[in-house]
Amino acid sequence: MRRPARIQDVAAAAGVSVTTVSNVLNRPERVNARTVERVRSVIADLDYVPHPGAVGLRAVHARSIGLVLPDIANSFYARIAKGAADAAYRQGYALSLCHSDDDPAREQEYLSMLVEQRASGAVVVPLSADPGRLERLRRRGVPLVLADRTRATEEGCSVSVDDVAGGTLAVRHLLEGGARSVLVVNGTRGIRQCADRYQGARQAARRLRGVTLEQIVAERMTVECGTEAVRRLETLPDAVFCTNDFLAVGVCRGLAERGADVPGDVRVVGYGDLDVAGLAALTTIRQPVEELGSAAIELLLDEVEAGADHAHEARVFAPSLVVRETA
Amino acid sequence: MRRPARIQDVAAAAGVSVTTVSNVLNRPERVNARTVERVRSVIADLDYVPHPGAVGLRAVHARSIGLVLPDIANSFYARIAKGAADAAYRQGYALSLCHSDDDPAREQEYLSMLVEQRASGAVVVPLSADPGRLERLRRRGVPLVLADRTRATEEGCSVSVDDVAGGTLAVRHLLEGGARSVLVVNGTRGIRQCADRYQGARQAARRLRGVTLEQIVAERMTVECGTEAVRRLETLPDAVFCTNDFLAVGVCRGLAERGADVPGDVRVVGYGDLDVAGLAALTTIRQPVEELGSAAIELLLDEVEAGADHAHEARVFAPSLVVRETA
Repeated sequence: MRRPARIQDVAAAAGVSVTTVSNVLNRPERVNARTVERVRSVIADLDYVPHPGAVGLRAVHARSIGLVLPDIANSFYARIAKGAADAAYRQGYALSLCHSDDDPAREQEYLSMLVEQRASGAVVVPLSADPGRLERLRRRGVPLVLADRTRATEEGCSVSVDDVAGGTLAVRHLLEGGARSVLVVNGTRGIRQCADRYQGARQAARRLRGVTLEQIVAERMTVECGTEAVRRLETLPDAVFCTNDFLAVGVCRGLAERGADVPGDVRVVGYGDLDVAGLAALTTIRQPVEELGSAAIELLLDEVEAGADHAHEARVFAPSLVVRETA
Repeated sequence: MRRPARIQDVAAAAGVSVTTVSNVLNRPERVNARTVERVRSVIADLDYVPHPGAVGLRAVHARSIGLVLPDIANSFYARIAKGAADAAYRQGYALSLCHSDDDPAREQEYLSMLVEQRASGAVVVPLSADPGRLERLRRRGVPLVLADRTRATEEGCSVSVDDVAGGTLAVRHLLEGGARSVLVVNGTRGIRQCADRYQGARQAARRLRGVTLEQIVAERMTVECGTEAVRRLETLPDAVFCTNDFLAVGVCRGLAERGADVPGDVRVVGYGDLDVAGLAALTTIRQPVEELGSAAIELLLDEVEAGADHAHEARVFAPSLVVRETA
């Protein structure tokens, strides 16, 4: 078996000093990019593993970011994680997955863990809107970016999708197609995204005379509740805007039960562009979810690395309309 | 502003010694569970953050596990991640998300990073079957559990689902329903899971006289390719077994195009029990995916913590049949 490579071997093979190799390992920002690349390539070729002493505590810790999410099995959050993982990888940071499982106590434990482990920072999709808890993290020196939420830029960075604009896009498309009575099948008022999407729908409806906009609040945002909403209607509207794709699939089923053709008799738009939207040929609103994750990491690392030069930013992404067959 | 709490304050408030608090932070397995709980609760109440020196390098590092996956936005892997995150949380370990994005070079960089950072161990859903690379990790002292793969127990632990049994379950159900000609719509041979599911299908078919089993290999495992497979059939079989749910949704569409009733004329079974299976009312095979993730972490931590007492294990999970409307 070959003798394990030492730092001197790496330096010799890369044609640099031992100090430069050490800097590549610990403070790559001080070394020019080409040299970093060459040294890393030699490290890979020689299968060199630094001695624990060679990579200092600071260096290892400084290169880890926490990603705190309510549910990694939910495709919306999984896509945020993908965007975040890609961006963290590109910048040479490890990403610690903190899956709070919709449990505020667990979320809090993860936040404490990130402080204890001196993480470089955290991207958080918060469960509760308790700003005090998150502030505490920032006071402890762990910079924090909120994802899928907006916040005042005095408090820090955030990334979100403009759901008001999404609601407007959806209903404007229905009105341009000739609809004059529009039903919104929505989730409960407590969900900020639902309230925003409905507000956007109202803004679009107000711009045109003679348009009626009604709302039904579904108990849950599922296929079954969408179908149930249609069963309870006395008269059918010209068009339905559902604030997620599952509701929209259910609404299409309910309309089929009542013998109504989609889009001939009733036009339907969903929200989210989930897998099911493609399968059901739904016209829907797409959110740039992976971009949300990668932008969160970029803003965070700007705060971590630029220090005093960093300016907080509330980055808001625009959704887009995806036209398929239902409207 | 209140003076930050010190370890002495925690000890006093919890009624234990400073050593016990330190043990709770670094070696909680040596402290009884009630005391751990009480001390942690005081730590939370006092908002105590240990000094970096109080949590040793070993302790911080020893409590991190790498999770290496091809694609976190794929719901199968996202559910593995959920199971793994839950198990790591229960045992007090951080989980480092290593999303290789289907790129072998990136997977390799992540593996090197885990070695450099002295991770406690890693759970890997490997992209390639290059055992040398993974072996190297293990030789470097990073224990490794393979997920969604089997391996000889001399080499280490693995967790997987018995896909041969899954194929048998699917086709046995079709035969019990009276089918005598069964078509398998499969992915390419190179995919181990596809080969296993087909092998299981053949085993079920061989047990009954007069059964014909044919196979079509779809270019990709998508809805479109499933529909296309049906379009090219000269005669329709009694039943179709698709080795994933997207193919099965496509096959149902193709059958509808040809005026065949499902399940009246042709019975269809899918595989995976993805979201789309519920929406399309597919009869399908369910895999215990989250259990795969949590079992991988448990086996890994047994190896990390039990040391010489650990025995490698190839844990194989049984899939189950979910009967809905298509068969």
